[in-house]
Amino acid sequence: MVKAKARAVDGPDKGFREAEITRRDLDQQDVLIEIKFAGICHSDIHTAHGEWGEVNYPLVPGHEIAGIVTEVGPNVTKFKVGDRVGVGCMVDSCGECENCQKGDEQYCNKGNVPTYAGIDKYGEPTQGGYSTHIVVTEGFVVRIPDNIELDAAAPLLCAGITTFSPLNRWQAGPGKKVAVVGMGGLGHMAVKIAHAMGAEVTVLSQTLNKQEDGMKFGAKDYYATKDPETFEKLAGTFDLIINTVSAKIDAGAYIGLLALDGTMVNVGAPPEPLSVHVMSLIGRRRSFAGSMIGGIQETQEMLDFCAEHNIAPNIEVISADEIDHAYDRVLNSDVKYRFVIDTSTM
Amino acid sequence: MVKAKARAVDGPDKGFREAEITRRDLDQQDVLIEIKFAGICHSDIHTAHGEWGEVNYPLVPGHEIAGIVTEVGPNVTKFKVGDRVGVGCMVDSCGECENCQKGDEQYCNKGNVPTYAGIDKYGEPTQGGYSTHIVVTEGFVVRIPDNIELDAAAPLLCAGITTFSPLNRWQAGPGKKVAVVGMGGLGHMAVKIAHAMGAEVTVLSQTLNKQEDGMKFGAKDYYATKDPETFEKLAGTFDLIINTVSAKIDAGAYIGLLALDGTMVNVGAPPEPLSVHVMSLIGRRRSFAGSMIGGIQETQEMLDFCAEHNIAPNIEVISADEIDHAYDRVLNSDVKYRFVIDTSTM
Repeated sequence: MVKAKARAVDGPDKGFREAEITRRDLDQQDVLIEIKFAGICHSDIHTAHGEWGEVNYPLVPGHEIAGIVTEVGPNVTKFKVGDRVGVGCMVDSCGECENCQKGDEQYCNKGNVPTYAGIDKYGEPTQGGYSTHIVVTEGFVVRIPDNIELDAAAPLLCAGITTFSPLNRWQAGPGKKVAVVGMGGLGHMAVKIAHAMGAEVTVLSQTLNKQEDGMKFGAKDYYATKDPETFEKLAGTFDLIINTVSAKIDAGAYIGLLALDGTMVNVGAPPEPLSVHVMSLIGRRRSFAGSMIGGIQETQEMLDFCAEHNIAPNIEVISADEIDHAYDRVLNSDVKYRFVIDTSTM
Repeated sequence: MVKAKARAVDGPDKGFREAEITRRDLDQQDVLIEIKFAGICHSDIHTAHGEWGEVNYPLVPGHEIAGIVTEVGPNVTKFKVGDRVGVGCMVDSCGECENCQKGDEQYCNKGNVPTYAGIDKYGEPTQGGYSTHIVVTEGFVVRIPDNIELDAAAPLLCAGITTFSPLNRWQAGPGKKVAVVGMGGLGHMAVKIAHAMGAEVTVLSQTLNKQEDGMKFGAKDYYATKDPETFEKLAGTFDLIINTVSAKIDAGAYIGLLALDGTMVNVGAPPEPLSVHVMSLIGRRRSFAGSMIGGIQETQEMLDFCAEHNIAPNIEVISADEIDHAYDRVLNSDVKYRFVIDTSTM
């Protein structure tokens, strides 16, 4: 057993405290990773606060993990000690169902094992990346290219792949008009990736506050959704809309912005259902869709793509003592654009 | 001007009466068609009853038209006198926008000219197929293959293309599981076409009343949607669902039947919005989409496909005097599966 320092919460209304957790002894194909940086995702906050169903506290969140391999199991072939690696939102899956076989482990028919707040194949609760070490089977570990700094790499493991996957699948590229709804952790990555893919990118944000950043990230246009004229002016424009907002939106207003055969892909999900007028889909053969992170192979492709195009998230590195404060700031949309915990401060 | 006998309604609550209408003199590329048969589509009823917006009465409905060319304009190249031809839901479009150029005339950016209750490029109201003659520009006329009877051909021009187009676009075929919601005029065609494309077809109908027919049309399974167990048993099953029902449905229940990457395409549209839980889309990368008839080239492909596979709708031929009664029967779902008016009885 490896002992790891971590930060844990003990209940929905509690703050983070220092904790010591144990990681399992290395199984045949396991990799021990010394975590260097862990990103803070909005999902961490929802889960820590118990908003996404019951949680077995104490909980150590974190599924944007970047670090160094320090030990490998006897049958590990992909990695060696010293490799720069990452772990995202899942640490295992059945490996046998048709979705796993296709490389869509995130949609495993038996359910993937989430990096935290899950139960692994040994029957133990999983604990995430707000920690100094983690043990993960090599099939769920990806390689971080040399030209991506580890702190910047961390958010790619969730925010990066969550936006890359639908942009890739729905073929953002030259000649395509892509709108990104929301300019937070996911949104700012969507802008950078879609731009690098060659698409013409428009940001749709509540206000114009982050317009300058958006244009730097590669957007060609930037509109405030608080301005009703935005929806008139842009009607029928986009081939693809990536909605990164988890709050309830007026789905019909955004669907109206799609061109013929356009698709709106939701990667953020409000708890309430959204109202969709079928006629607005029929009238332009539009689609309203959803997408969840990406498969392991696709996550590696995303990292390689970001390395090739020199794309990295904009981050603010914090110490472990600042997690509670960072959560408050995320909830106030006061982050540009992702907090990353330096785990050497654990 | 050509004088034509027709059946018209004078208001939302009126029955059909005999009428005489005039068709324009043939323009350079116009074709004069002696209509032999006209199908009765549910849209005709909605429009005649004023349920889809204001209508300029008197109205002659009908957009499932099959007949014989009796005269051609001087520049007509596609057709000659005596040809067996059909006309569907539209009789013109701008021809210049990107959608028209792509063959998606139904999505013309300036709006296509509907076969009835529209205004043509001469500024005149269009009148439909419940009539003995019609004049249409050759670009919106399709050829009816010799082995499809004219009476059976008529419903293909709307019910056929409306279901063929999404089945074709979303690639129904071998290895694909397709569900058809509703076994009416559209639904029964969707079953036949999807089966001919090689897909495994399941019918989802309110009851099992038409099960025997459904299996004859090519369905492998048939389930009653009134039985809640249907939705448990079939969860996560279908690659494609074609929803032909215009009534408000529990969209979430049907979305739950989609497999990974599955799409539910609506070709019927309720006036009310539907409630869609985004999480149910995200969790299996599903899409909720819409589709409207098809382009002219695609309509020809559909007719050729039906000829090749010996597919025709099941129809009940009626005389012009029976239209009101037929409308009542359609509203009571008492039709197997399409009424077709014999226009020689006008």
